[in-house]
Amino acid sequence: MPKEVKALQATKKGEFDSFERTTIVRRDLRPDDVAIDIKYCGICHSDVSMVQWQGQHFPMVPGHEIAGVVTAVGSDVTDFKPGDRVGVGCLVNSCGECPACKSGNEQFCEKGSVIVFDSVDHDGTVTQGGYAQSIVVKDHFVLHIPDKMSLADAAPLLCAGITTFSPLQRFNIGKGDKVAIIGMGGLGHIAVQFAAKMGADVTVLGHSESKRDEAKKFGANSYEVMKDKEDFDRLAGQFDFILNTIAVNLNLDDYLKLLKFEGTLCYVGIPSDDQHFNLFSIFGNQGSITASNIGGIKPTQDMLNFAAEHDVKPQIEMIGIDDVPQAYRNILDSKVRYRYVIDMSALD
Amino acid sequence: MPKEVKALQATKKGEFDSFERTTIVRRDLRPDDVAIDIKYCGICHSDVSMVQWQGQHFPMVPGHEIAGVVTAVGSDVTDFKPGDRVGVGCLVNSCGECPACKSGNEQFCEKGSVIVFDSVDHDGTVTQGGYAQSIVVKDHFVLHIPDKMSLADAAPLLCAGITTFSPLQRFNIGKGDKVAIIGMGGLGHIAVQFAAKMGADVTVLGHSESKRDEAKKFGANSYEVMKDKEDFDRLAGQFDFILNTIAVNLNLDDYLKLLKFEGTLCYVGIPSDDQHFNLFSIFGNQGSITASNIGGIKPTQDMLNFAAEHDVKPQIEMIGIDDVPQAYRNILDSKVRYRYVIDMSALD
Repeated sequence: MPKEVKALQATKKGEFDSFERTTIVRRDLRPDDVAIDIKYCGICHSDVSMVQWQGQHFPMVPGHEIAGVVTAVGSDVTDFKPGDRVGVGCLVNSCGECPACKSGNEQFCEKGSVIVFDSVDHDGTVTQGGYAQSIVVKDHFVLHIPDKMSLADAAPLLCAGITTFSPLQRFNIGKGDKVAIIGMGGLGHIAVQFAAKMGADVTVLGHSESKRDEAKKFGANSYEVMKDKEDFDRLAGQFDFILNTIAVNLNLDDYLKLLKFEGTLCYVGIPSDDQHFNLFSIFGNQGSITASNIGGIKPTQDMLNFAAEHDVKPQIEMIGIDDVPQAYRNILDSKVRYRYVIDMSALD
Repeated sequence: MPKEVKALQATKKGEFDSFERTTIVRRDLRPDDVAIDIKYCGICHSDVSMVQWQGQHFPMVPGHEIAGVVTAVGSDVTDFKPGDRVGVGCLVNSCGECPACKSGNEQFCEKGSVIVFDSVDHDGTVTQGGYAQSIVVKDHFVLHIPDKMSLADAAPLLCAGITTFSPLQRFNIGKGDKVAIIGMGGLGHIAVQFAAKMGADVTVLGHSESKRDEAKKFGANSYEVMKDKEDFDRLAGQFDFILNTIAVNLNLDDYLKLLKFEGTLCYVGIPSDDQHFNLFSIFGNQGSITASNIGGIKPTQDMLNFAAEHDVKPQIEMIGIDDVPQAYRNILDSKVRYRYVIDMSALD
């Protein structure tokens, strides 16, 4: 029998004050489903964007950084059992048959992947996310949370973690590589840790002095405030890989000149405006510009295992369910350090 | 004793009618020098740009696609002897010590590579190029022309050949890859042959029907006229690699959508205007944008050997020395098919 559970929903697009407590229905377990009691859910900048302007289906229960405990499993499920500590990230369904799905890149499913909220699932229902007491998810999309990792720490890794881990893994970042991370916010502070723990020499490129000490704490070897042409001249040709974690427009030519021969600048922060560059900025070093879009399920499990083994942790501010509207405002004002996590027990 | 040789020089920047026959001096042989009688010199679009607006030192003898026969060698030269059929491309000097030089990428020499004309050499002299009877070049920068290849065919390969071969080699293009070549002019018609002979499935993306039959002759599997949104929709997600060989601005978003997952679009044609793109054009396929800048000496020799073995040939129009001004105008008007080569015997 479908189950009614408490949740927090945004009722109107663009209105953070429209959040209200509500009750939603989670489906009966199918043979390949896992039912999860949600203990914590992270708040991602993209939750804010969805409520603010991108979302399609209101009322909407956001949340795609879900950590909790299994309460029941369908008859065909073998990988999970009640009591298991598990997570769910952005993805909850895909075709499973196309080359993208078969290669572990479910986010690029040719038939369209299904996101954990505001997405139309294969059965026609609109998905509802993690600001809720529980969720039912197909087993393939459920992650094991390693014993060493707390559920609260796991939550932000399920989006911010895989978003930053995936490009570092794709470009084989490791010992001997010089990596720059543009911005040290929700994504950046995790990227710094991953890159450092992979063995790279890490430089944070910031816009003020305020995070210099924390950058070192997260494992950065250097912190550079990038303001003037002189700052860019000084660091020209220094980096094998630059990860842009901020969602504001870059002066791309300035940053491309920081690349070594055949280095790569990768966006995970996605500015909405067109980006522009002069070809001579990449003609002189055969540099590349690319982007990375979350990550598939197998890489997400690899990321959690790597984070547990190397003690990579998001820095979190725990909040209650009624703090969500203010948290959204703080995220837009860059006041969060570094990632909000909702303690879902407040919904009980 | 330095030798006086006949040459053709542009005396004024921006004036194609300023070309005049003249006499220049080639240096005495140093121990590592090779003296070459020039038989043919190709005309590249970049020669035209140098005379038109980019050049720094006038009068200027252009020409960086030089094919000829060795007449003398310095006392330390072991790789060449009089009578050898040889070529010289863009590069004639570099430091030889920096990581770029040591890795065979002399064009990215950290101290600045020296180009065959309009460039200040390490001894302070300004280099003069291939529109001349002979040239003296340091042995490291001289290429062997394979027996099977005519000197006239070799000439354009020394720039247009390596420019297109190098990125195809860098991205390991081969059997199973779908490659698109944007434009089929001086660079494109050689790129099509190289990609096809490497085993790729090659599509030419043109702007009119006029080259459809020739594309097939050069080895293309398909020819597509790209005009409307429908053309781009039809080919979305099709290509592992796209090589842009034209020097006009692209609607980059249109072309990026043609890439497969983690495909690459590489510029060898360099538009002077800024290029712009929306990040969602690469966020949806993790595609990359890059550029390629000629190639080092070892890859250039590899390219000549590959071309000889696989019968890759530029299609050339042979001209006399006094036809150069008109040839320059024709290149700007896209009237050349596909590459002009100057028969240098007209200078005798």
